Amino acid sequence: MKPQQVAPIRRARADMAEAAQHLLDQKTKPRGSLGRLEALACRIAAVRGEPAPRLGAKAIVVLAADHGVAAEGVSAYPQEVTRQMLLNFAAGGAAINVLARRAGARLVVADMGVREPVSQTPGVRDLRLGPGTANLRRGPAMSPDVARAGMTAGRSLAAELADGGVELIGIGEMGIANTTASSALTAVLTGLAPETVTGAGTGLAVAGRAHKLRVICEGIERNQPDPADPLDVLAKLGGFEIAGLAGVVLGAAERGIPVMMDGFISSTAALVACCMAPLASDYLLAAHRSTEPGHTAVLEALGLDPLLSLELRLGEGTGAALAMPLVDAALGVIHEMATFSSAGVSDATV
Amino acid sequence: MKPQQVAPIRRARADMAEAAQHLLDQKTKPRGSLGRLEALACRIAAVRGEPAPRLGAKAIVVLAADHGVAAEGVSAYPQEVTRQMLLNFAAGGAAINVLARRAGARLVVADMGVREPVSQTPGVRDLRLGPGTANLRRGPAMSPDVARAGMTAGRSLAAELADGGVELIGIGEMGIANTTASSALTAVLTGLAPETVTGAGTGLAVAGRAHKLRVICEGIERNQPDPADPLDVLAKLGGFEIAGLAGVVLGAAERGIPVMMDGFISSTAALVACCMAPLASDYLLAAHRSTEPGHTAVLEALGLDPLLSLELRLGEGTGAALAMPLVDAALGVIHEMATFSSAGVSDATV
Repeated sequence: MKPQQVAPIRRARADMAEAAQHLLDQKTKPRGSLGRLEALACRIAAVRGEPAPRLGAKAIVVLAADHGVAAEGVSAYPQEVTRQMLLNFAAGGAAINVLARRAGARLVVADMGVREPVSQTPGVRDLRLGPGTANLRRGPAMSPDVARAGMTAGRSLAAELADGGVELIGIGEMGIANTTASSALTAVLTGLAPETVTGAGTGLAVAGRAHKLRVICEGIERNQPDPADPLDVLAKLGGFEIAGLAGVVLGAAERGIPVMMDGFISSTAALVACCMAPLASDYLLAAHRSTEPGHTAVLEALGLDPLLSLELRLGEGTGAALAMPLVDAALGVIHEMATFSSAGVSDATV
Repeated sequence: MKPQQVAPIRRARADMAEAAQHLLDQKTKPRGSLGRLEALACRIAAVRGEPAPRLGAKAIVVLAADHGVAAEGVSAYPQEVTRQMLLNFAAGGAAINVLARRAGARLVVADMGVREPVSQTPGVRDLRLGPGTANLRRGPAMSPDVARAGMTAGRSLAAELADGGVELIGIGEMGIANTTASSALTAVLTGLAPETVTGAGTGLAVAGRAHKLRVICEGIERNQPDPADPLDVLAKLGGFEIAGLAGVVLGAAERGIPVMMDGFISSTAALVACCMAPLASDYLLAAHRSTEPGHTAVLEALGLDPLLSLELRLGEGTGAALAMPLVDAALGVIHEMATFSSAGVSDATV
């Protein structure tokens, strides 16, 4: 998938951000005093192409898949947890169930390829690409065709949500060992050293992290991904859920819908999408800064400053859900606050 | 008002924070992976004295008053804005109206002493101590008796809210020139140099800030407040709304209710309260870090790390309102998430 194969993405409109700021500057508060909440409102105005946007329904897409590299012992958790958590999402017991409900967001969960399928589980869509990726330490995680199919599935999902009235999409994931894949992807796509972008994941100790780093370095060495070809990098080092989320980002951008990224893995998926279609980055919102060191590298590569810094490292879209109320608040300020003139309040004298 | 004159404040229960963490550690997520959200849940457990607390109604108390020192030209806005904004709060057009509504918090607005009263305005309580404080550059802002009366009014208000089922109180304020008073208070109470804790307020340029700093230094020099006597410091340099909010903090702590501070001024009021009754600090939650440099000094003095860092500098309780959904989310995680055993999810292997 090269940029020209992607549907056109409209550049976010800087004039609409300015128009939103003009509206905000007339509200009864010192100019700029709502800080980054104002910047958030302006960014959404630019994305939506109107000075005072309203967002319709919100959804959080959580894609789950297994990673062959889990066999290398790079995670603190056994691989079956991916499938167990998928069932937990379906049953409503995971953190993202609790937080999406509070954010007023619909939760959309899909199996992109856990090792053993969760056949016909209500609440889990079947978008399986296979029983998990191959082990990236030994060869490519998947073929380019499969990576492309994963992206297409994600794009279709975004389009379906857009057709259903969703106007803000949060992205999250579940996949034991997927920080390993994300660190490898991030190292190649940003050009940073693997040790800079490799962390403890869900809870590795120092020795475990050193082993994980070795696996990542060997995987990159073995696969020789081409940094100039993001599909090649994605296929060789990525995960099914990462391919799917990269597709969700492209599909959302094609439909003019802002995407609230979550942590390291979902942001890496967004980076993959933006390497293919740079204009997609206009549509991204960064929810939080994870404790994973690679996340900061991805945020810098995307030029985004996250809204929250709560030392989260869970994934699942939890950070995206926690940030969504700030979007509601930012747009509420535009729509509901009085102006200096309507309220009869004196403006600044200096 | 000395510590012994304050009703007993129960120390927050560290054992209940531990019990809450134990509950969180059984939930289907890597231990600690919800970061500061988990710490927030534990802090509220400690304050409420139970491992899995639920909080009843939420309220945001916004106290408004005028400051004699506004005559020195220390604000970018004319003094009548205090009264105009009080009317704006009553009419529902201010930022805090929008944000309190989204947080599900009841808004309680009181006139602690704006220059011209807003007599019998629905939605504005009359807790007036006078037509604004005296000019702290020339002498004491108020007498110790008036400061004490302001604190008593705030304590009574907190008690009334507690009686009405409120279990989380946010504090906010409005008062042209009140960053001048807060910087003076903070300098004396923390021992830091006034230049360290003096900022641009609602929007002063460099020259204006230098003038403001001179006014603060002269006010401290003229009044010679005794750092060991917080009531003396409050009376000489404070504001009616700051006295009131210090009282709200004490009243909430006496009733075992957590207090979500907002920005620099409300946090300074909390610092005054804690200088009088150190155990009150157990009940404080820091919503955000304002751009005012004095706010960081106050947060450090209180030993608190704020939840948000959105470059807010508005006041009114807006930051407190924005942080309240995080409290709901943190407690929701304790109550609603499945455990490893209930969901059949494998725990970590390392």
